[in-house]
Amino acid sequence: MPVVVQKYGGTSVGTRERIQHVADRVARTREGGNDVLVVVSAMGDTTDDLLRMANEITLVPEPRELDMLLTSGERIAMSLLAIAVNARGCRAASYTGSQAGIITDTQHGKARIVEVRPGRIRESLDAGNVVILAGFQGLSTSYDITTLGRGGSDTTAVAMAAALGANVCEIYTDVDGVFTADPRLEPSARKLDRISYEEMLELSAAGAKVLQLRCVEYARRHGVHLRVLPALTDGEGTWVVEQDEIPTLEQALIRGVALDTDEAKVTLDEVPDRPGIAAAIFKAIAAEGINVDMIVQNVSHAGRTDLSFTVPRAELQRIHEVLQGIVSDVEALRYSTDDGIAKLSLVGAGMKSSPGVAADMFDALATEGINIEMISTSSIRISCVIRAADAERAVQTVHQRFGLSDDVLEGEG
Amino acid sequence: MPVVVQKYGGTSVGTRERIQHVADRVARTREGGNDVLVVVSAMGDTTDDLLRMANEITLVPEPRELDMLLTSGERIAMSLLAIAVNARGCRAASYTGSQAGIITDTQHGKARIVEVRPGRIRESLDAGNVVILAGFQGLSTSYDITTLGRGGSDTTAVAMAAALGANVCEIYTDVDGVFTADPRLEPSARKLDRISYEEMLELSAAGAKVLQLRCVEYARRHGVHLRVLPALTDGEGTWVVEQDEIPTLEQALIRGVALDTDEAKVTLDEVPDRPGIAAAIFKAIAAEGINVDMIVQNVSHAGRTDLSFTVPRAELQRIHEVLQGIVSDVEALRYSTDDGIAKLSLVGAGMKSSPGVAADMFDALATEGINIEMISTSSIRISCVIRAADAERAVQTVHQRFGLSDDVLEGEG
Repeated sequence: MPVVVQKYGGTSVGTRERIQHVADRVARTREGGNDVLVVVSAMGDTTDDLLRMANEITLVPEPRELDMLLTSGERIAMSLLAIAVNARGCRAASYTGSQAGIITDTQHGKARIVEVRPGRIRESLDAGNVVILAGFQGLSTSYDITTLGRGGSDTTAVAMAAALGANVCEIYTDVDGVFTADPRLEPSARKLDRISYEEMLELSAAGAKVLQLRCVEYARRHGVHLRVLPALTDGEGTWVVEQDEIPTLEQALIRGVALDTDEAKVTLDEVPDRPGIAAAIFKAIAAEGINVDMIVQNVSHAGRTDLSFTVPRAELQRIHEVLQGIVSDVEALRYSTDDGIAKLSLVGAGMKSSPGVAADMFDALATEGINIEMISTSSIRISCVIRAADAERAVQTVHQRFGLSDDVLEGEG
Repeated sequence: MPVVVQKYGGTSVGTRERIQHVADRVARTREGGNDVLVVVSAMGDTTDDLLRMANEITLVPEPRELDMLLTSGERIAMSLLAIAVNARGCRAASYTGSQAGIITDTQHGKARIVEVRPGRIRESLDAGNVVILAGFQGLSTSYDITTLGRGGSDTTAVAMAAALGANVCEIYTDVDGVFTADPRLEPSARKLDRISYEEMLELSAAGAKVLQLRCVEYARRHGVHLRVLPALTDGEGTWVVEQDEIPTLEQALIRGVALDTDEAKVTLDEVPDRPGIAAAIFKAIAAEGINVDMIVQNVSHAGRTDLSFTVPRAELQRIHEVLQGIVSDVEALRYSTDDGIAKLSLVGAGMKSSPGVAADMFDALATEGINIEMISTSSIRISCVIRAADAERAVQTVHQRFGLSDDVLEGEG
């Protein structure tokens, strides 16, 4: 029997009514002649509420215990959904990440899946059950409960889809699919029918929240067919596939615009331009487990240079702790942080063979009087750091310049 | 190192402040040179809230899934407490019932512990951790999560104490210990310093809520020293020990009065007085897993008799379903139910060798004009079913008649 994996996010199971709605869809899918595995996130704001409770006790909760706490959220959602599906006369059984054989490394709070042992889930499906699985969690190689980090339920779904050889992994969300830009910022943004793994990876890395980076990586690596679908309506959503599976007519120079407002900029002034200095700085930051995104260093003057990089805004406090310790070791004059930035990115596989895209993007921003503070590029992405106050205007002007709206033919630019 | 097991109920960990308070006590016990294992219930009304959520979806939630849901409550409480204890610089690790090796039968909702495999907990204690354990739950022999029924956390604590050979199992509650009567009903009720397992069993069975019946049974069978203590103050509490461990001076004719207002009375009118009829009735009720408490049948007239029994009030709906099916099979005239009753019990090991206690009790009630509807006795207990409206007065008059108050010497009667 074909296996369908469906993942429902926290908003989709946020109330009793929505759980009933999801249960209807799950039962329908099952009755359609599929083996069904459902991955759920915690209801609504449960995870944030639990985190707040821990932080009311201490600002630095023990990571192992915090994971134990946070995983309760999915446990509540999955058992309620299993109760609702059973109430429809459709047999369902729920399993924790641990019970489902999701084995992770031991990094509490952001564990990575190292292995999936789907034996028990396979048995449960074979016994005729709809399987409801807790997202976001696993069991570490030292037998402790771990969490996979924000958005980890998407990764759970893809990992199980890969382990079970599922025909499709459907990610149900509170949006209609993947858009050329966030429709809340750009009302004329168009839903995409298909997008390549590569483009989706860049969009996710650039701050598009619809799919987590790791989930897309995992799907690409294991050839899982991924589909983003609306949880509350019956839209067709967006398929994430290989670039060569996208019909030529649908191929585009630019696939979309993404905005990331969760980062902050850090600048070290007048760092000696010597081998080993940058390494010392980023080694110290990496040792704290802080992800650095863009790094920009300009030509030096008098043997000194300014070094800027971006980090998640939530890590600023820890960045201060790291830099206070090393700013004099690396002989920098001083450092400063800036949390008033946004990162605007333009993504498209067609960029590879089409010079001039960057110039067009910069020109569009300049026309609106928007200053660019940092630039970084990949073969299919251009990102600019700008003032957060300019972000919405920037999305709109770039979206328009590249003709991404609904009423414009694709392929232009 | 001596092992101390401490169990904290839902009220004791009901707020952040109370969790901090419990964490203080746990850390102190650890610093006092003990291995400490802490069993916690869900915070405050969490279990009821979760049950309500399930019932909003369906009135008959799948038992396996309901257990999965309800066990989230302890998971939240135990990880928050572990976070709080760790924050005091005292290493603590939390474990679910499954992780702790609490193996139960497969009766969801009221599973019984069949085995404790304390290997992982022993290792964690040996590694220097305070162990925080989820009460009320286990893993069934078919690897599903089970719950032990209301008050099951007490049983978890005693079972782990037995498995680890703990020196004492301390049950922390929102009362100061075991009293001669519920102090809310009888303000002059006296706290007992010691009570025998046997007496405590009868009091628990008679509706005293301070300790669950199963927990006391388990403690007696495994020789676990049990102690009931106040969670919020530093009182001495009550020891539950063997009868012969109670000093002669403290031994008493009557240990206490208990009131049970959670039962209802069922009467079958004019049942044929033939072998097999009672068996048929109680077999049908047992098949539904409903616990029958008192059963009274009087002498028959013209080959027919009235048969009365009590059941938990919460089971009345199911009792109707059972009796509607069999009332004509057993040729009873009709049946009726009555949820306006209360059961008053008098408990004391001294009763065995002291006739006249029952007569004194009935006389005390009669003096107050309180009618007795049913009577049942064990060697150390007398129970009377009376009107619920008379219950409080009945507790007071019996308590006074047997001189159980603080200002009266023991041994009277």
